[in-house]
Amino acid sequence: MQQVYDENNIFAKLIRGEIPSIRVYEDDDVIAFMDVMPQGKGHTLIVPRKGSRNLLDADPETLTKIIKVVQKIAKAVKKAFNADGVTVMQFNEPASGQTVFHLHFHVIPRFNDVPLKPHSGEPVDTKTLEESAAKIRAAL
Amino acid sequence: MQQVYDENNIFAKLIRGEIPSIRVYEDDDVIAFMDVMPQGKGHTLIVPRKGSRNLLDADPETLTKIIKVVQKIAKAVKKAFNADGVTVMQFNEPASGQTVFHLHFHVIPRFNDVPLKPHSGEPVDTKTLEESAAKIRAAL
Repeated sequence: MQQVYDENNIFAKLIRGEIPSIRVYEDDDVIAFMDVMPQGKGHTLIVPRKGSRNLLDADPETLTKIIKVVQKIAKAVKKAFNADGVTVMQFNEPASGQTVFHLHFHVIPRFNDVPLKPHSGEPVDTKTLEESAAKIRAAL
Repeated sequence: MQQVYDENNIFAKLIRGEIPSIRVYEDDDVIAFMDVMPQGKGHTLIVPRKGSRNLLDADPETLTKIIKVVQKIAKAVKKAFNADGVTVMQFNEPASGQTVFHLHFHVIPRFNDVPLKPHSGEPVDTKTLEESAAKIRAAL
């Protein structure tokens, strides 16, 4: 079982700006951006700039920074989409559903009686993601 | 939609010791205990002693304390059960699956090709939970 940090994982490239992302928030330590294969409208990912494979090898100082942004985004998506609730998920290793091996938290607005879509569905078009991002930025 | 904190929710009672719990870790701010209706072997809940309904109304200082314990428990359950991965989930409001309205994080050991059981299944007997708790305490 490979459990090292690969500096060429797609989120590491995204953080370095080598591949595009639709960002809703960033600071010196943390970036929040739209999931391109959302499990629901407004599905946002929060990552630390500092590389760790997942929660298991993250340094505690990074966690204190990221959890505050997770809260900030959770409140913003609830407001932005007038959601009934918010789901926060964080997966560690493939057995848990982790597919990109850079620590990330999922924040997903939830609506009564609307189940989550499967984890790796179809990519959503950029225009739709940009519209969601604009709503979240306005709610931050 | 009721969105206040009820000081008589079952986790508040558990924290005050008014109802029993099988605890694996506690400090001045945070308690970790076995979920009595686990979605998998070793399913542990982490709560702050300080009352908040969920992530949306928690104070950031509480979050920095709880996320470090979430990491500690995630590492411990992985070791205790020789798990392949760990799932972390945190639900806000009924639309997200929240059923007890005191902030809590779920930490669940995961095994390849074993899906999570439904959120509110049957309670597991105390002996089985005590055995799991002993393994987690030993791994902490």
